[in-house]
Amino acid sequence: MLYLGIDLGGTNIAAGIVDDKGKILRKDSTPTILSRPIEEIVGDMAELCRRLVKEDGLTMDDIAAIGLGSPGTVDNKNGVIVYSNNIPMKNIPMRKMLEEHFPGKPINLENDANAAAYGEYIVNGNNAESFVFITLGTGVGGGVIINGKLYRGFNSAGGELGHITLISGGEPCTCGKNGCWESYASVTALIRQTKAAMAANPESMMNEWSEKNGKVSGRTAFDCAKEGDKTAKEVVKQYAIYVADGLSSIINIFQPEKLSIGGGISKEGDYLLDPIKEFLAENDYNKYMPKTKVEIATLFNDAGIIGAALSEA
Amino acid sequence: MLYLGIDLGGTNIAAGIVDDKGKILRKDSTPTILSRPIEEIVGDMAELCRRLVKEDGLTMDDIAAIGLGSPGTVDNKNGVIVYSNNIPMKNIPMRKMLEEHFPGKPINLENDANAAAYGEYIVNGNNAESFVFITLGTGVGGGVIINGKLYRGFNSAGGELGHITLISGGEPCTCGKNGCWESYASVTALIRQTKAAMAANPESMMNEWSEKNGKVSGRTAFDCAKEGDKTAKEVVKQYAIYVADGLSSIINIFQPEKLSIGGGISKEGDYLLDPIKEFLAENDYNKYMPKTKVEIATLFNDAGIIGAALSEA
Repeated sequence: MLYLGIDLGGTNIAAGIVDDKGKILRKDSTPTILSRPIEEIVGDMAELCRRLVKEDGLTMDDIAAIGLGSPGTVDNKNGVIVYSNNIPMKNIPMRKMLEEHFPGKPINLENDANAAAYGEYIVNGNNAESFVFITLGTGVGGGVIINGKLYRGFNSAGGELGHITLISGGEPCTCGKNGCWESYASVTALIRQTKAAMAANPESMMNEWSEKNGKVSGRTAFDCAKEGDKTAKEVVKQYAIYVADGLSSIINIFQPEKLSIGGGISKEGDYLLDPIKEFLAENDYNKYMPKTKVEIATLFNDAGIIGAALSEA
Repeated sequence: MLYLGIDLGGTNIAAGIVDDKGKILRKDSTPTILSRPIEEIVGDMAELCRRLVKEDGLTMDDIAAIGLGSPGTVDNKNGVIVYSNNIPMKNIPMRKMLEEHFPGKPINLENDANAAAYGEYIVNGNNAESFVFITLGTGVGGGVIINGKLYRGFNSAGGELGHITLISGGEPCTCGKNGCWESYASVTALIRQTKAAMAANPESMMNEWSEKNGKVSGRTAFDCAKEGDKTAKEVVKQYAIYVADGLSSIINIFQPEKLSIGGGISKEGDYLLDPIKEFLAENDYNKYMPKTKVEIATLFNDAGIIGAALSEA
């Protein structure tokens, strides 16, 4: 069976034809252009899907179902995007809108981080009894898969892993609370931490790096740390502790068989993973039972397409 | 069907005959006496069970299964208490030991906080799709019930809700990590916070209270706050924030239909619950979907007996 998965992002709409093993047969993307009405954005989603099907020599009859991963709070029971901050949406009857383009086709809606989690699980989860995916991006998101199914909570708003508290009363978070994990472990937070360290240490190589690259990014501290810059190393060390300490909360709650780390910063690979593993080994509550396997995710942007396509399949 | 539930505590062994609705028909307890060999403790568990059955005019044929709630890491698959700190145990073949007393009878082992969570769920959960129980006692423990089943993780060590991080790098925790929720929200932590406030504020009524009562306890700050003592009010206010901020992490992860607060401090009732609810309302990530119902648990010590009896029933 084949499925269509759509990943609605703030910059691009990505979509792909996915088989039931999570293999993407064909994919493409089109700009979201947030300034226009949602109807037009949905129209371009549909257009992109139809084009992929055609280019692959298929018809819509070959597609069992269509899934959409969207930012925000998604109510799949009622087919509604309840609220999204990144792509301004409130009570959008998304299923109905997509059904108008694809009459009679099952349409599933999923939160984008949940969809990415499910995609990683399908491809890299090895049927783990429990699987957690976290994404270190502009924010910190994630998803939890228990016995092969996404955990959503009774109101479909669960799995907001970035909004566990890391430092009670600490840095303000976009969610309104202070001290969320996201406020310390996101790319946004890493950039804030990098800028503060640069200002306090004018001799740090990071100042030169950012001048050369035109800006401070999530890579500034990692790149300069690899070159041996002392201040950059300290930024990376503390950032890895912030990430790892949040992971330790998640592990103590779920003891998942596997935990996968995705998002932009995960591309640092072992340079990020090694200090995380060190912290987790030193601070492990579970001293006598088998341990959670912590890995870097492999699918990057494809995870959302695959998970959206298959999350209800 | 009837079940026997045993709650193994550091001071007492409590046991009860429980029906399948979670009603305790008869219960009693006997001292644990930690100084003796585990075989003798297990012997007294069995003796207590036999006595309850006899006193209720039953025979062991009326008992479908026996469940034990124990502190520590419990491996029900293999029938072993893997490790417990409070009651010193390591790799105790508890199922085998109990089977010697009750040949042929199904024996289930469960972590005590999980058992209490399940007991509260059975009696007060109203079949909630998702239910979280936390206990504010010497430590902070808890359990998570999803679709009617205890969540244990792939290694049976999950659900350690007290060991999520509340303040990264903060107060040392008995688990080896720093800054666990337990280090701020347990009775032990409240007593530490109370003593610090008393020392810094010699005029506080709490000094007089503790002299009269012979010690500082988890009630000191609450009792004096109710009498209007300013310092005590501040201790209670900050303590409630610590509790609530950890709860907000749990809610953002699980969005459980119900969340129940038990343990010694929960007896403060609305005096504890009201500021918790205030914090949760002000710091709610979920602004558009139905909210978790937060309540004080009602069963106190009976929860562990009921949950142990029924958790595998």
